[in-house]
Amino acid sequence: MRPAAFKPEALEEDSPYVRDLSGGKVWHRSRHRTLYVDTDRSGVVYHSNYLIYFELGRTSLMRDAAYPYKDIEQDGYVYPIIQVGVDYFKPLVYDDPMYIHTRPSALERVKLRFDYLITHLETGEIVCKGFTRHCATNRSGTPVAIDEKTLSLWKNFPR
Amino acid sequence: MRPAAFKPEALEEDSPYVRDLSGGKVWHRSRHRTLYVDTDRSGVVYHSNYLIYFELGRTSLMRDAAYPYKDIEQDGYVYPIIQVGVDYFKPLVYDDPMYIHTRPSALERVKLRFDYLITHLETGEIVCKGFTRHCATNRSGTPVAIDEKTLSLWKNFPR
Amino acid sequence: MRPAAFKPEALEEDSPYVRDLSGGKVWHRSRHRTLYVDTDRSGVVYHSNYLIYFELGRTSLMRDAAYPYKDIEQDGYVYPIIQVGVDYFKPLVYDDPMYIHTRPSALERVKLRFDYLITHLETGEIVCKGFTRHCATNRSGTPVAIDEKTLSLWKNFPR
Amino acid sequence: MRPAAFKPEALEEDSPYVRDLSGGKVWHRSRHRTLYVDTDRSGVVYHSNYLIYFELGRTSLMRDAAYPYKDIEQDGYVYPIIQVGVDYFKPLVYDDPMYIHTRPSALERVKLRFDYLITHLETGEIVCKGFTRHCATNRSGTPVAIDEKTLSLWKNFPR
Repeated sequence: MRPAAFKPEALEEDSPYVRDLSGGKVWHRSRHRTLYVDTDRSGVVYHSNYLIYFELGRTSLMRDAAYPYKDIEQDGYVYPIIQVGVDYFKPLVYDDPMYIHTRPSALERVKLRFDYLITHLETGEIVCKGFTRHCATNRSGTPVAIDEKTLSLWKNFPR
Repeated sequence: MRPAAFKPEALEEDSPYVRDLSGGKVWHRSRHRTLYVDTDRSGVVYHSNYLIYFELGRTSLMRDAAYPYKDIEQDGYVYPIIQVGVDYFKPLVYDDPMYIHTRPSALERVKLRFDYLITHLETGEIVCKGFTRHCATNRSGTPVAIDEKTLSLWKNFPR
Repeated sequence: MRPAAFKPEALEEDSPYVRDLSGGKVWHRSRHRTLYVDTDRSGVVYHSNYLIYFELGRTSLMRDAAYPYKDIEQDGYVYPIIQVGVDYFKPLVYDDPMYIHTRPSALERVKLRFDYLITHLETGEIVCKGFTRHCATNRSGTPVAIDEKTLSLWKNFPR
Repeated sequence: MRPAAFKPEALEEDSPYVRDLSGGKVWHRSRHRTLYVDTDRSGVVYHSNYLIYFELGRTSLMRDAAYPYKDIEQDGYVYPIIQVGVDYFKPLVYDDPMYIHTRPSALERVKLRFDYLITHLETGEIVCKGFTRHCATNRSGTPVAIDEKTLSLWKNFPR
């Protein structure tokens, strides 16, 4: 299976936001580089590590776009993950630089979803695509309405 | 979302195989216990670690049912993961014992899929369900037909 | 550098304790097997993972010898690590079975130390040796005297 | 135990090198930030993750100071770790920014050592200190003399 085309263009110089000229959507973009520890004996990055790159993308987006996730937890909210999915297209190897693209997507009353797309920073090739779905809970794990700070992330995310 | 019922019963005493009396399917079952390193500051197991428990289930199944995955790689085959999906229902916490249930599911010409279901070993509650899809390749990454040893896993898996 | 000889002999059949006939000391012994995720692109287990095997050894020892560490934390104690050291002799590779040998060593008023020695389960070769030093604290991180349950581990460990 | 004072001052504006005014030594400095996955249920960063931060420091130093480690491996050399040691002083928590200070220290014929010192980026407090010792080998694991690129790192490291 081949991923749909992805043609990111920075919204402004030095902006962490890009618009995908193929689909029109705006994504937050952060940079990262693979480490030795991320690889496995087949020479490529072990598949579960992409979920950690997703965390890095999500946490960078939240800091740049609205509030650090730490602030949200300090307000008494937790957003445990209830579902993940990843499609892998072309593995990263040791010392590869990458762009992690992240965007807030579906927003329901107590659930929300982030989408991710990782590309090789130099070649632009699509490495993987994925999503994480989260449920808003209070500290004791009871589902609650999504907090104001997180709502502002959805409201203010560039279009 | 609530998972479908799962009522495992051992095929024979001391057998690593169980039949789910709800759905009728046979699963391989292995045991594991969470470590401190698996948890995060919210007190539960970090979500990407369940993919590692899946690896443990898959590798135990292959050893018990046919051939260790190591042998398959020695024959020149690699089975990189091309897709994963996980639904999380009830998190494990530190020192929780678990059963990892694994079964070979879809088998295509160059692709295959394993399904997983993790339960709390003592309470029987369903922790998460998921799958991994793999592509058969040779050492240089070219897709190839699935090898004989892996085929025998599908052929000989108890029904 | 070559490690000192290590000649473990089980104290009794099926006992998790072995005596090292070279040095005379008793060690707790647990089994484990490396996973794909533990390896890196050089083909061997990434060095920081041995600290996780040490955790597995330590936690198995505490469960077998006295109290699970979970109980100790429930009593309000935490034992953060203040120092580690590891000497690596011969790396483990994918799917290698190992013995993790663990023993309580130095015990001070608010500090304690565990020693570790990992061998290849089949060849008996010494993989690595190491130690972790811990400080007894209460939940808010203040150093406190070592708790009774942990003291009983030192008192009752076979000699 | 309390760590010796550490008073880093940038060699030049925007330089990745700092001089420790307490001891006089020059260190390479890189930035990083903890993730959720790095923490454990006690709320702090799990101890083995600092070894991964050390890898990040070491790899950044090599890229800035001489050659990326990837180039050295492409030349046929591997530098497996034969010893590590870490002293932990004050744990990092979730979302903490850090400075990783790294410097090449002892250099022998086939062995070398890096020293590390991590501080909290905002408070300047010392988080931990440590070292890794490596052995130069060829691809088949035989010890060999340290390669020219690595020697140039030691030769050209700012004083």
